[in-house]
Amino acid sequence: MNLHPQLEKDSLLLGDLELSQLRIIPDGELTWFLLIPRKDDLIDWDDLSLEDQKILCEEISFVSLKMKEFKSPDKINVASLGNMVSQLHIHVIARYKSDRAWPKPVWGTTSEVSFKSEEVQFWQNLLGLN
Amino acid sequence: MNLHPQLEKDSLLLGDLELSQLRIIPDGELTWFLLIPRKDDLIDWDDLSLEDQKILCEEISFVSLKMKEFKSPDKINVASLGNMVSQLHIHVIARYKSDRAWPKPVWGTTSEVSFKSEEVQFWQNLLGLN
Repeated sequence: MNLHPQLEKDSLLLGDLELSQLRIIPDGELTWFLLIPRKDDLIDWDDLSLEDQKILCEEISFVSLKMKEFKSPDKINVASLGNMVSQLHIHVIARYKSDRAWPKPVWGTTSEVSFKSEEVQFWQNLLGLN
Repeated sequence: MNLHPQLEKDSLLLGDLELSQLRIIPDGELTWFLLIPRKDDLIDWDDLSLEDQKILCEEISFVSLKMKEFKSPDKINVASLGNMVSQLHIHVIARYKSDRAWPKPVWGTTSEVSFKSEEVQFWQNLLGLN
């Protein structure tokens, strides 16, 4: 997979799942994952084969359930937008009724809290990625 | 399925797919569908069984491909947010580089163009829902 340089710049590698590279956006306030299917020339959701969509769903569910277990969010946002960077990437974000953007979408807002680099190791351990 | 009154108020019924009720938001500028799985007590994506997630993916792909065929969007946005209304509903939105919100998300913005009620019949015909 060729990773778009903007996605590489905006996020940190956690590791590879079966289909997707899992990355974390160093937000500080919110746990914000990106799932990036490791195939070239994907733009929209429907560019994935149905078989790969099924695997992607399993991966969305896997990380969602871990977020619920360890972060107790009020809601999980799942979204493939890609207006800024067209390469297919799926946001999975743990949201809280008390977070900075609730109930609005969080894109375009900035955390006032610094990201702790230990989060990378924390999630790699929890997700079995190391 | 119990449909949340806000979802019912904000959108118009197109018909039922295998898993989801398909509705359209009368936006005027953008083609904006909602897929609402017809099961009770669903909030997050991972509340669906993996089997139902697979069907949901097929439905996302089905409507995405029809949007591409008939509306030639620059990008399809697919998102399960649910911060306003917790009942699981998936937005599938045809976006254009020239639309009112591009490249930002479209939630919270309003079309300046009136919705044409013929759109309901147009999509019901195209999607085989009547």
